[in-house]
Amino acid sequence: MKLHHIGIAVGSLAAARPAFEKLFGKPPDSEELVEDQKVSVAMFQVGESRLELLEATSEDSPLARSIAKRGPGLHHVALAVEDLAGMLRLLEGAGFRLIDREPRCGAGKEQVAFLHPASTAGVLIELVEEK
Amino acid sequence: MKLHHIGIAVGSLAAARPAFEKLFGKPPDSEELVEDQKVSVAMFQVGESRLELLEATSEDSPLARSIAKRGPGLHHVALAVEDLAGMLRLLEGAGFRLIDREPRCGAGKEQVAFLHPASTAGVLIELVEEK
Repeated sequence: MKLHHIGIAVGSLAAARPAFEKLFGKPPDSEELVEDQKVSVAMFQVGESRLELLEATSEDSPLARSIAKRGPGLHHVALAVEDLAGMLRLLEGAGFRLIDREPRCGAGKEQVAFLHPASTAGVLIELVEEK
Repeated sequence: MKLHHIGIAVGSLAAARPAFEKLFGKPPDSEELVEDQKVSVAMFQVGESRLELLEATSEDSPLARSIAKRGPGLHHVALAVEDLAGMLRLLEGAGFRLIDREPRCGAGKEQVAFLHPASTAGVLIELVEEK
């Protein structure tokens, strides 16, 4: 298992980007619109992981609701797993509350699923099966 | 540069640990009391990074104040850098607001410094110079 990425909710990508560009000494390694989640993403590769800045593209996106409720900042942690469907069955059997009971398509067309923060000490955790 | 760790603020290590032990399939790789920060830490190695659960050991610790203000959950992101003192001078010159203008001793006796979230899109970032 490895840390796949850290998701950071920002009010504006344009406003947030410069600080991270200075910190990492480079522009984002990639940018993407994730239609399904209604977010625009700027990704910085950092070692084997990456840091993702996330801006909501619609007021009814889950991210916009999260920012309205808790403000911007650290939003979720994503872990890379080898067998996502198997991991979800295992966690459900262990009593974890799942947001997604089946893998679905996330950024970079990878299969992803979110665990409910109620089971994980208030932390929103995403599981990603890398292509 | 790599992601050194993710810090997660928890009300109780004993209550938060079991979920992460199930998720990672192992007990914490190490546990430590960081006197300087008045926190008790349980660390799970995840690839080249680690996930740290942090419990305040005193009500006047910075972590306890953070939990009182924002609740538990994702607390900070730490980046491993090669020359911490040089990086701090570089960031200060670039207009970043620093919490620590000089490196100080953190967990594992490594040299650390925190950047103020006001400069980094509301995210508390720690820089760590690994031993």
